[in-house]
Amino acid sequence: MQKKIGIFDSGLGGLTVLRELEKTVSDGVQLIYLGDTARVPYGSKSPSTIRKYALQAAQFFSEMNVGTMVIACHSASAVAVEVVREVFPRMRIVGVIEPGVQTALDLADAAGSVTPAIGVISTRGTHRSEAYINAIRTRNATIQVISQPCPLFVPLVEEGWAGTDVAAQIAHTYLAPFRLKPVQALILGCTHYPIMLDDIRQQLPASTVLIDSAAPTAQEVCPPLQGVSTPLPTMFFVTDISERFSELAGRFLGRTVDRISRVDLEPEVVALPSS
Amino acid sequence: MQKKIGIFDSGLGGLTVLRELEKTVSDGVQLIYLGDTARVPYGSKSPSTIRKYALQAAQFFSEMNVGTMVIACHSASAVAVEVVREVFPRMRIVGVIEPGVQTALDLADAAGSVTPAIGVISTRGTHRSEAYINAIRTRNATIQVISQPCPLFVPLVEEGWAGTDVAAQIAHTYLAPFRLKPVQALILGCTHYPIMLDDIRQQLPASTVLIDSAAPTAQEVCPPLQGVSTPLPTMFFVTDISERFSELAGRFLGRTVDRISRVDLEPEVVALPSS
Repeated sequence: MQKKIGIFDSGLGGLTVLRELEKTVSDGVQLIYLGDTARVPYGSKSPSTIRKYALQAAQFFSEMNVGTMVIACHSASAVAVEVVREVFPRMRIVGVIEPGVQTALDLADAAGSVTPAIGVISTRGTHRSEAYINAIRTRNATIQVISQPCPLFVPLVEEGWAGTDVAAQIAHTYLAPFRLKPVQALILGCTHYPIMLDDIRQQLPASTVLIDSAAPTAQEVCPPLQGVSTPLPTMFFVTDISERFSELAGRFLGRTVDRISRVDLEPEVVALPSS
Repeated sequence: MQKKIGIFDSGLGGLTVLRELEKTVSDGVQLIYLGDTARVPYGSKSPSTIRKYALQAAQFFSEMNVGTMVIACHSASAVAVEVVREVFPRMRIVGVIEPGVQTALDLADAAGSVTPAIGVISTRGTHRSEAYINAIRTRNATIQVISQPCPLFVPLVEEGWAGTDVAAQIAHTYLAPFRLKPVQALILGCTHYPIMLDDIRQQLPASTVLIDSAAPTAQEVCPPLQGVSTPLPTMFFVTDISERFSELAGRFLGRTVDRISRVDLEPEVVALPSS
């Protein structure tokens, strides 16, 4: 039977996780990307609304006989992994939080500091959920954790302002806590933040290592292959196709997306006139 | 029969229109606000998705026997007024574009310039729709119109960065076309922009008048009253209640909102577990 892996994100940021998966999956695996671009962003929305959206996405994958669903959105991983597992027990559900946390703890451990500390930057929703803090504390109850929401980073990336003076000033403001108390590892707790890597890097002590969860998540889904992987062509679904889709997709995926389908996760309640 | 007026917005920015309506409606009128906070923002989404959302909102108002629906969101006014009128012919549908345009044309006319010009700043969706340009040209085919999208203004306002150096720099970049070619009137084509009035003002020639559509829209809905208006207490509905609701609502409405109800515009397709 053909193996299918679904990658779900609130929008297009999850393409960074897809990019890593395309490098690691075995021959014959079908990757299916689903971006909820009609309701993006999730970072400012409530846990109950995000859970509803994640369950609708899982329903979509379930109907396609997907075996593993990757929740590439940190805001959705923070609040929806458990409920999706409960409602869809036959799918394997992988979030982005645990893989990033494990990488950060390994690094903090290797640094051998007497006052080890891990930082997390994220959307407001992920910050408020305390999902990162809980995941870290479960593994290491004594390590210091500093969590900082950076809500303007997503619009800056989507509008192409990464690398500007404005991005530097906003990053300087948001990242002040990590200059006051340097951390060994800083988790980039949102799919958009790796695009601002240089802006973030410049505001931190040189000793701080930045952690992008995309590669560790892909490795949790499929252990790295020996040799070259040739998966089937990835299938792309989004809930809204705006004119800027190609530009944004290219920014996250590093290549163009040829064929994309629009899908409704919510049923129509009002019939459009036929004209 | 009790008269009901529905005010629809993608989120909370439409509260600026509600604020004006509360000043002008007659005694006994019931104002009903509906913010689609579960799917906000609309400015980056496609016309077909925005139309679907506006039709769902109209369906909600129709079921409440609303007589007049005000589409307070410029992105929705730009693409959805006609289809909502077509599907719900018994409701009066008022958008924010026409009232703002009429005010701008009156001002440009009064200024008596030999090269009259009107500016419009808006979301990407409103800009791309050319709804403002078309509405202006229908009334005055020769006036120059300069339309400029300012997509970062909404997140700046929502995150409380209005009035900062960062807001000034972004406004300076976006508003360059209006220093190169000064306009008599600049329409603030998004409900959030009046909150950045000072930032915008500082980047423009002193002769340019800024136009907020909220007051002219309220006047189109209900002509100004003689004396004091005492409408019934406004009813508030949103599709998602996040923790920051009160803070944001206060920023747009200028007062606190006591009672608010959550409503689903899209039916549930996946049952949540009962636990």
